[in-house]
Amino acid sequence: MTPDIPGWVTTVALTRPSLQDNTSDADRLVGALKKQLSTDVVKIDFEILKKLPDLLRKWNYNVRCVVFKDRERWILTHIDRAGDTPFPAGLAIDLGTTRVVLRLLDLASGKTLAESSFDNPQIRIAPDILARIHHADTAGGLTQLNDLIITGMNQAMTILCRSCSIDPVDIHLVALAGNTAMTHFFMGLNPHWIIREPYIPVVNRPGVLKAADLGIKAAPLARVLIFPNIGSYFGGDLIAGILYSGIHNAADSAILVDVGTNAEVVLGNSSWLIACAGAAGPALEGGVTRMGMMAAPGVIDRISIDPVTCKFDVHTIEEKRPCGICGSGVIDLAAGLFMAGMMDIRGRLLPEKCGKRLQRQNGIEHLVVVARNQSATGSDLTISQADMDSLIRSKAAMYTILETLTSSVGMVPGDLSTFYVAGTFGSFINPRSAISIGMLPDLPIDSYKPLGNSSLGGATLALTTPACVDEIDRIQGSITYLELNVNQEFMNRFSAAKFLPHTDPSLFPSVKRSIS
Amino acid sequence: MTPDIPGWVTTVALTRPSLQDNTSDADRLVGALKKQLSTDVVKIDFEILKKLPDLLRKWNYNVRCVVFKDRERWILTHIDRAGDTPFPAGLAIDLGTTRVVLRLLDLASGKTLAESSFDNPQIRIAPDILARIHHADTAGGLTQLNDLIITGMNQAMTILCRSCSIDPVDIHLVALAGNTAMTHFFMGLNPHWIIREPYIPVVNRPGVLKAADLGIKAAPLARVLIFPNIGSYFGGDLIAGILYSGIHNAADSAILVDVGTNAEVVLGNSSWLIACAGAAGPALEGGVTRMGMMAAPGVIDRISIDPVTCKFDVHTIEEKRPCGICGSGVIDLAAGLFMAGMMDIRGRLLPEKCGKRLQRQNGIEHLVVVARNQSATGSDLTISQADMDSLIRSKAAMYTILETLTSSVGMVPGDLSTFYVAGTFGSFINPRSAISIGMLPDLPIDSYKPLGNSSLGGATLALTTPACVDEIDRIQGSITYLELNVNQEFMNRFSAAKFLPHTDPSLFPSVKRSIS
Repeated sequence: MTPDIPGWVTTVALTRPSLQDNTSDADRLVGALKKQLSTDVVKIDFEILKKLPDLLRKWNYNVRCVVFKDRERWILTHIDRAGDTPFPAGLAIDLGTTRVVLRLLDLASGKTLAESSFDNPQIRIAPDILARIHHADTAGGLTQLNDLIITGMNQAMTILCRSCSIDPVDIHLVALAGNTAMTHFFMGLNPHWIIREPYIPVVNRPGVLKAADLGIKAAPLARVLIFPNIGSYFGGDLIAGILYSGIHNAADSAILVDVGTNAEVVLGNSSWLIACAGAAGPALEGGVTRMGMMAAPGVIDRISIDPVTCKFDVHTIEEKRPCGICGSGVIDLAAGLFMAGMMDIRGRLLPEKCGKRLQRQNGIEHLVVVARNQSATGSDLTISQADMDSLIRSKAAMYTILETLTSSVGMVPGDLSTFYVAGTFGSFINPRSAISIGMLPDLPIDSYKPLGNSSLGGATLALTTPACVDEIDRIQGSITYLELNVNQEFMNRFSAAKFLPHTDPSLFPSVKRSIS
Repeated sequence: MTPDIPGWVTTVALTRPSLQDNTSDADRLVGALKKQLSTDVVKIDFEILKKLPDLLRKWNYNVRCVVFKDRERWILTHIDRAGDTPFPAGLAIDLGTTRVVLRLLDLASGKTLAESSFDNPQIRIAPDILARIHHADTAGGLTQLNDLIITGMNQAMTILCRSCSIDPVDIHLVALAGNTAMTHFFMGLNPHWIIREPYIPVVNRPGVLKAADLGIKAAPLARVLIFPNIGSYFGGDLIAGILYSGIHNAADSAILVDVGTNAEVVLGNSSWLIACAGAAGPALEGGVTRMGMMAAPGVIDRISIDPVTCKFDVHTIEEKRPCGICGSGVIDLAAGLFMAGMMDIRGRLLPEKCGKRLQRQNGIEHLVVVARNQSATGSDLTISQADMDSLIRSKAAMYTILETLTSSVGMVPGDLSTFYVAGTFGSFINPRSAISIGMLPDLPIDSYKPLGNSSLGGATLALTTPACVDEIDRIQGSITYLELNVNQEFMNRFSAAKFLPHTDPSLFPSVKRSIS
């Protein structure tokens, strides 16, 4: 990129035509853009051609252009008069299975104008992807799923734009990152083969489409960049995450972990990238978040337990009275119980240390985290031995995946210099707790970098940093996908990881219990 | 091009997906096409993506593809099953101001299936371009002109396809060559500035458009290549003519002359091309064809005059009774009169040699070419001294243009090794006659090569020979347009060329009259 183009908006002052320079209007503009963008190919939509002669003359050959890049080709998607308001806007989208997040941007400055999110309206068909894909096989099912998300998106766009006093037709570029199935629903592409061996998406690299062709009510010529996937289980949200993390440009190897419904892991550097998805890890299906609640006011997000007094120090979101517990709270709880000796290395709650907190309900041991007189619900907030067993399987699967992935390139988890943790999980968990239970490797705490919504972050980069768009396909093309074969070696590793922190405590030298 | 792709149709057998090779349907097809076409970028339309999974499985991963090239990018415009009928068809169009010619092709073999032509329906608005452009400035005028040609084209396509038992939706590629104004009308682009100083078209390189966007009722995803122009007075028909002539690939310099309403001339070789258009030559406006009739049965197309007996030998098209005379007949007539001494070197009809054939009507000398008792009309077929004067101005302008163009690169007309003559003019004139009157330079007769409809020929090449498509922009980009300044030097040359064959007879050594 030339230095004067921080984003996708560029202003050009054309030489006025003369008998000595009688190049056509369109080729004159293309020529100026080619020079300004240092490129060979700039494409002008036919619809722009039709109005170009009048506009150029009206605007005295000074135009502000919104351009975008579709692989090797630059596209002019909009022209207006330099200095005209409203400004050209862009929209970054994280298209989640459960939640959709929108970020509205000023394309010229790259600044965020506003954000919003909404529940994926496809939830009314089914909360999970699998059931939605089966629904798409029924008559009209795919159209219905597509309509739901497109209509929902258009409504959310309208509201979001209104909050910034602009119109959706001022949106000229959109970048969307989502998992493979959601991306297919969004495009109205048949997801049938995604979940059937050998798991074939319709498309890996959808590239740049016209918003109008997708039903998205942005500017008439707006373009939508849809992040590519590398298969049914490793979607554009992860590619966006890699882009956002920058591991594909780093000299030292780093790892990126995204734990949502599945756990997806990417390891690599500027030379290579290797990835796997935790859908293949049996205990991680559903993930650690299933046992708790989504983060919300009153939900316990942090717990510490005094190893001497065994007293609980519970923190809730917005410091409301506690009403439940979320993933980060559960991990804190497990770590605290283990470090205080209230739970053994197999994850069993120990009556002699838990005392009155341990109660049997329906034949299963329950630990009272918050007593009824202090909870918002009026009931005890408890966690069962079964929940703990599930957590331990999840943490073991996570560690096994990390071990399998690193060993595939001759490394061990402890070799990692930087460990990016994406998503809500990454933002809320206490790495110290996750290390204590052996879920994450025993790295210095500052090796752990929460990324937040890296899918949205990557989509945003595509709209603010033109050079990033070239990197997307490069990332997609350089990833080696490691199929997690649940073979004997995997099961041995998994079994060893089911202890707290691990059967081999030398892997977790920092985890030292004061109690025996 | 790989040798197995003579045209734009290619058949690919895809590797079936497996757990070891789980590339998506679209990227699998793109990968195979990239390999087969030796290219980096193949674009699949969104509409094809939607049906691709079903089609690939139904067809067992064997597909016949119609591809096309839009600059650096290949586009997949159609897929069907290898061996399916009907075959993919292409349509080459010569979009003339007066007449539109269509050629239907089998894209796989490149063979012509059928041809047809129709009068440009815009004639009902005005016969000439200038008046049509003015009409486009009136309310609804441009839309009306656009509708006329698009509707006419669709009707002609339907009839032409029916003659080959195919449907217009079997047409997947279209290539269209026309002059700059006609091309603008066809695209619905505003032609206003084409005729106003400094004569700026909306676009020089329209490139490849979707037929549907133009209103052309071919296949839904059919593409239309519109030949580029280099300005208002040098259109895509000429670029197509250059492509067809091959002068842009020849080591030796050659010239291409197209005489229609205007005279357009291109001189060059594989290193450079220089062009000018005869609209700048005052006497050539209207051209030599104005004085006669269009070629039709009974029209005199060849005349020879015995230099001794002064007897006329008249040939008519289809050997019907004579009803008029066309351009080639007029040139033959002028040459014959001059060589027989019936006309002097100034082009004056000489009463002493013409005898009874010369008659005065309304104060102007008329030469009776065919007496009333032999004509189809029952009247004498005559040509006036004024017609002869007009021919001589035209031939002088033509020679002056050739002289100006060649001298601009340090050559003289006699240096030319090959002289391509395009259009009806090129097909019918007798070069010997044209040389005798000094309209064309005194080259060996076999230097003259008639090209026929070179505009249609170039459009056809774009549909049959993929490598030619890359050459179109290269030709457009390499032409230097010589503005014909009607200055003193031009007028001196013009005056010298108004003699038969020229004031300098040494330029025409082969023209030897037996009479003094």
